[in-house]
Amino acid sequence: MSRTMPEVCGDVRRCVVSILTDFGLSDPYVGVMKGVILGINPLAVPVDLSHEVPPQSIRIGAFMLEASWRYFPEGTVHLAVVDPGVGTDRAPIVVSAGNHLFVGPDNGLFTPVFETFPDARAWRLEASVYRLPRPSMTFHGRDVFAPAAAWLSRGVPPGQFGPVWPSPLRLEALQPVVQEGRIDGEVSHVDRFGNLVTNIPGELVRGARWEVQVSGERVSVHRTYGDVLEGAPLGLIGSFDRVEVSVRGGSAAERFQVGVGARVSLVRLDDLEKVREAH
Amino acid sequence: MSRTMPEVCGDVRRCVVSILTDFGLSDPYVGVMKGVILGINPLAVPVDLSHEVPPQSIRIGAFMLEASWRYFPEGTVHLAVVDPGVGTDRAPIVVSAGNHLFVGPDNGLFTPVFETFPDARAWRLEASVYRLPRPSMTFHGRDVFAPAAAWLSRGVPPGQFGPVWPSPLRLEALQPVVQEGRIDGEVSHVDRFGNLVTNIPGELVRGARWEVQVSGERVSVHRTYGDVLEGAPLGLIGSFDRVEVSVRGGSAAERFQVGVGARVSLVRLDDLEKVREAH
Amino acid sequence: MSRTMPEVCGDVRRCVVSILTDFGLSDPYVGVMKGVILGINPLAVPVDLSHEVPPQSIRIGAFMLEASWRYFPEGTVHLAVVDPGVGTDRAPIVVSAGNHLFVGPDNGLFTPVFETFPDARAWRLEASVYRLPRPSMTFHGRDVFAPAAAWLSRGVPPGQFGPVWPSPLRLEALQPVVQEGRIDGEVSHVDRFGNLVTNIPGELVRGARWEVQVSGERVSVHRTYGDVLEGAPLGLIGSFDRVEVSVRGGSAAERFQVGVGARVSLVRLDDLEKVREAH
Repeated sequence: MSRTMPEVCGDVRRCVVSILTDFGLSDPYVGVMKGVILGINPLAVPVDLSHEVPPQSIRIGAFMLEASWRYFPEGTVHLAVVDPGVGTDRAPIVVSAGNHLFVGPDNGLFTPVFETFPDARAWRLEASVYRLPRPSMTFHGRDVFAPAAAWLSRGVPPGQFGPVWPSPLRLEALQPVVQEGRIDGEVSHVDRFGNLVTNIPGELVRGARWEVQVSGERVSVHRTYGDVLEGAPLGLIGSFDRVEVSVRGGSAAERFQVGVGARVSLVRLDDLEKVREAH
Repeated sequence: MSRTMPEVCGDVRRCVVSILTDFGLSDPYVGVMKGVILGINPLAVPVDLSHEVPPQSIRIGAFMLEASWRYFPEGTVHLAVVDPGVGTDRAPIVVSAGNHLFVGPDNGLFTPVFETFPDARAWRLEASVYRLPRPSMTFHGRDVFAPAAAWLSRGVPPGQFGPVWPSPLRLEALQPVVQEGRIDGEVSHVDRFGNLVTNIPGELVRGARWEVQVSGERVSVHRTYGDVLEGAPLGLIGSFDRVEVSVRGGSAAERFQVGVGARVSLVRLDDLEKVREAH
Repeated sequence: MSRTMPEVCGDVRRCVVSILTDFGLSDPYVGVMKGVILGINPLAVPVDLSHEVPPQSIRIGAFMLEASWRYFPEGTVHLAVVDPGVGTDRAPIVVSAGNHLFVGPDNGLFTPVFETFPDARAWRLEASVYRLPRPSMTFHGRDVFAPAAAWLSRGVPPGQFGPVWPSPLRLEALQPVVQEGRIDGEVSHVDRFGNLVTNIPGELVRGARWEVQVSGERVSVHRTYGDVLEGAPLGLIGSFDRVEVSVRGGSAAERFQVGVGARVSLVRLDDLEKVREAH
């Protein structure tokens, strides 16, 4: 893979590159991407975020990226490849926001980044000098996105890769509907423990007592698993910093028999009590 | 996450941080912990031990840690988070033993470390300056333990984190019962190949001929798989440095229909022959 | 594990060590190998290729290694442990080819390396100074191969490990049969998406129109998923740089009900049309 060096090539330097894909870990796809990255920037530090995004689920990929990126150091390059449109004309892009960089297909994966940073900027990845030679039509993770992430990790400015990309695609709002004393959201993700992770930010429920309504049942929101008995259901602010429905020592997904997309409502208990009194 | 630096902050420096959890790899929990670590010590080298400890199984977590830590270089920080009591008042601790450091909840995970090193010392992780700001009630792996491991990897002395923790919790003995010519143990773990890994250290059986008794059957202990025919069962010293019951090219778990907790006895063949002669 | 240093020990230095095994990730086997490597060369950069090679499947291991190694930087040490013969007299070897090094058992894993590089050279790993003390009979990945890879990553020349190994074992040809206008191959691997990855290199089909015959059906070869409708089958050059049979947004393995070893033929469409005209 010898070739002429790009004109602006930056410096080999230590830089974290987080990687999120739907490739799984049984195939060597992710390992190959890391090989490409380390070939371009031997001082890059690849870190797996997850490779078990359900195949081609852009929405869950966006959710996982959003829940994770802010725990990484400033300057991190986040490489996110959930790419059902690989080989079509969907644009490969780099996004600069909040002193982090994001690389991947323009298919909505970065929606939460644009929601958080209205001043985020994007560029289209075009310059062939920052790709592998003769990129394939099926594996842009290896041929386009990994090399871009590696060059960015060396400090090549995003504007070197191509023109400004003015209107990146955004998914239909991932946000819950917030009213006085009530929040309507949905299950965004079911984690390995069977916790029902909603799209409702934990910060919205701090400082008041709430009840979760899910699958026709009502569950109180607590601070921690220790507040209920073994086997009992509860709501709490979980590891994604979102409201979760859990079962202490068990699986809420099994208990409530619901999954991604299920409606979840939060009702503030004070208000609820008023409603009940009124009847 | 800008904030004032802790008073004693050590130096950014190269240091291995091994990570053992029951979080699985499908969620980005482990990746987020690595992001936190690298944000505090950019030169840390995170290494996954396993993230497939069965959910909340402290005993198997302790077993895996014990079988692994001594293969890491001196100075390694071992971050172990199997934490069913997160959010309760179980203590977060750091243990110093044999030139290694261990970080995690005080719930018995470190039992084998204390058994191996009677002079091991522990401290409670209290100083908020070495945690993420506003730690959650549900994800101390990210908010308490990963930051502690990262600061320790920079050389902050364990005593800076809080007071000595005098009586760390120990699990009921994990040790087999050793008599003359007989060892009674149990299956501690079933690995991916279906090997029944016992709690009986391999060194106890070296230099003599032994027979394993499991599930009502008797199996000879050999040096290697090559000593028996394809499909035949055997005992041997396995990859965990423990006596294992295996099937060459097959699964002992299927063959014997037993799992974790099953009783396993070793009988020294010389003695056995004497017993048989006596009848 | 203190001991005398080997006479020729090279320098601690940055070097990628790729790791391919059939150990899975649920047990700490791979983590322990990384601990051993970093204990010998603290600047080594271990990168997982895959640990989900089906247990003891040398052929699929060889396929994954072949599809991956050339994407790593020159000087990489590739550590490959799919080792059904561990503990027998199969030789542990190191192979030097194309400015890469390969370490593992001599059981055919490196067949494609020898096919690609007729001048590849191999040595037997014998010198005990480059092994862990008292190597086990069951886990040479930890005791023999990981230390060898680590010392090689420090620049110890392969010839220091033992004598030249003149006739490394080769698997029966993994190559497809190529005739004018027709290529007969087989399914080498089914990836996580259900793609049927064949042993037919993509470069053989570039620049002409082809049809794949699999499981009694005929499917056109296209450039990209976007060329067919959702749910439709197609052939294409996939992420392994091989011809794959895929289903857009679905699983070809389910659609065609075939797996590893299934026959796959490619017929050049021009020729096919001639054949059809002749009837």
